[in-house]
Amino acid sequence: MRHFLGIDLGGTNIKAGITDEAGTLQCRESIKTRPERRAAEIVRDMAYLAQNVLASAKLAPAEVAAVGIGAPGTPDNANGVLIYANNLPFLNVPMRAEFRKVLDRPVFIDNDANVAALAEAVAGAAADVPHSVTVTLGTGVGGGVVIDRRIYSGFNQAGSELGHIVIVQGGEPCTCGRKGCLEAYASATGLVRETVRAAKAHPESVISGLVGGDLSRIDARTAFQAARAGDATGQAVVDRYIELLAEGLANLVNLLMPNVIVIGGGVCNEGEALLRPLQERVDALGYYGPGVAKTQVRLARMGNDAGVVGAAMMARSCLADGMKG
Amino acid sequence: MRHFLGIDLGGTNIKAGITDEAGTLQCRESIKTRPERRAAEIVRDMAYLAQNVLASAKLAPAEVAAVGIGAPGTPDNANGVLIYANNLPFLNVPMRAEFRKVLDRPVFIDNDANVAALAEAVAGAAADVPHSVTVTLGTGVGGGVVIDRRIYSGFNQAGSELGHIVIVQGGEPCTCGRKGCLEAYASATGLVRETVRAAKAHPESVISGLVGGDLSRIDARTAFQAARAGDATGQAVVDRYIELLAEGLANLVNLLMPNVIVIGGGVCNEGEALLRPLQERVDALGYYGPGVAKTQVRLARMGNDAGVVGAAMMARSCLADGMKG
Repeated sequence: MRHFLGIDLGGTNIKAGITDEAGTLQCRESIKTRPERRAAEIVRDMAYLAQNVLASAKLAPAEVAAVGIGAPGTPDNANGVLIYANNLPFLNVPMRAEFRKVLDRPVFIDNDANVAALAEAVAGAAADVPHSVTVTLGTGVGGGVVIDRRIYSGFNQAGSELGHIVIVQGGEPCTCGRKGCLEAYASATGLVRETVRAAKAHPESVISGLVGGDLSRIDARTAFQAARAGDATGQAVVDRYIELLAEGLANLVNLLMPNVIVIGGGVCNEGEALLRPLQERVDALGYYGPGVAKTQVRLARMGNDAGVVGAAMMARSCLADGMKG
Repeated sequence: MRHFLGIDLGGTNIKAGITDEAGTLQCRESIKTRPERRAAEIVRDMAYLAQNVLASAKLAPAEVAAVGIGAPGTPDNANGVLIYANNLPFLNVPMRAEFRKVLDRPVFIDNDANVAALAEAVAGAAADVPHSVTVTLGTGVGGGVVIDRRIYSGFNQAGSELGHIVIVQGGEPCTCGRKGCLEAYASATGLVRETVRAAKAHPESVISGLVGGDLSRIDARTAFQAARAGDATGQAVVDRYIELLAEGLANLVNLLMPNVIVIGGGVCNEGEALLRPLQERVDALGYYGPGVAKTQVRLARMGNDAGVVGAAMMARSCLADGMKG
């Protein structure tokens, strides 16, 4: 049985874990990232953490087939370099070389959202199909594209920026500089913005009461709570949110026709209240001819383990492709 | 040297041609489709046409490694069936079986826009790169996605409907039933609609004069002609056309990061007047981090041969994948 070591480099924490060939997580540890440090120090700490996980699992380094690192930003996996990172001091950091100074095993690097999508595709909600797209609805909207059970992220490894697809030309400003991106509507941030606006425009709504009159306490759950209480304003916000998310997902369907779209992130805690109407609208908006099978929308299953498991499975995939790590 | 036979099934004409392994076209013939006929008759005529092309090329059937058919609509290549077609009386037609009754060689089927994209990827404007997207700006907007030099069209072969990506939610009605699709703005049809509207709103523009006062004579060239003559209204129509096309292409970039986007179709006869500002806007709208390589936009090269050459190269690709035809 081969083992793989996955590392999830985040702005707050670094997590590392060991999986088997199938992506089953065997043990996991984490430390603080402390992103104010120099990149080389952070990479060295990642390697020490990896050694600790190996020790906990009672494995020798040679028993790990490869190490996968999921990092925010754009990797150059061929050369083992992180070209740049969001919220971290990484610019053309030779992560593979630095990491191997401490733990000398093959090292592969990919984007954190891509490896999370691979985790769902190998061990999660889309494990039964070859083609899936995973969309994470959090503070922003990110995601990854898996084709034939492998991450596809374009010629420069910078693709599958699913949040930065304009669906409302000239619409709400997006963090990327464009206007009207899917992220500006389908993120928790976008949902909160619309809930606040609706509460202000409709003082008769229960929304204000749900947050004790303090609109700054509105979060991504508030509109769904109001809708469940029968509030027309809350329902309108939820309906509009689902409609715009469905437009974005239908764009992905028409372009990529994945077997499955997996949705994750905080907003998905709404479960069936979100999933059922969303599937209905995506079915209606998708460009399907008569007799053509439709894409299924499913809830993510990997939760907080997606980064570590996906990074490990990415390393497995790179080894299988004969890449040098 | 192996040969491949490509067939381009269109609503008006059926074209067939023979290529070598590299997609170089060696001879080509065509007949009328006469789409009012039964599907079985049309398929039989396709096979007779293929036999004629073989005779012209002085090739025995056994010298053709495989036959590729590019057809409008959604194919089921695994089973050799055309599930349905646009503008043709095809519904679950067993094309492979019918064709092989006349010419008994392996037969593969794919969508016409997909095979045209493969033609550009093998023998045309994107022959030097692994990943490309070809977008055709004609009466509608169609296209195909090529990943690792192979057509990718999703789990149901119905994907890469590039025209049916909403960029203006709630915008202009599209032929697909949604509102604000790229096709509604970037097609020749959309460009004509906007040119007519602008001419009506701005009687001082030269547009009306360019068409002898008959606005029904406005075509996809008119706004570009007016812009070249220094007309502000014509320039505004061209600028808006390029901006919306760039929004659509930037969506493709952010999602797929192909090395190259190939644009074809009538509108592309404008050449550099379209390409130069378009590349500039796509560069500006794309989600590239510092130091990340950018997608190039190029003009299509395959012209009317794209369907035949692409169908032949699709057959080559299917054989290489070990598929049964």
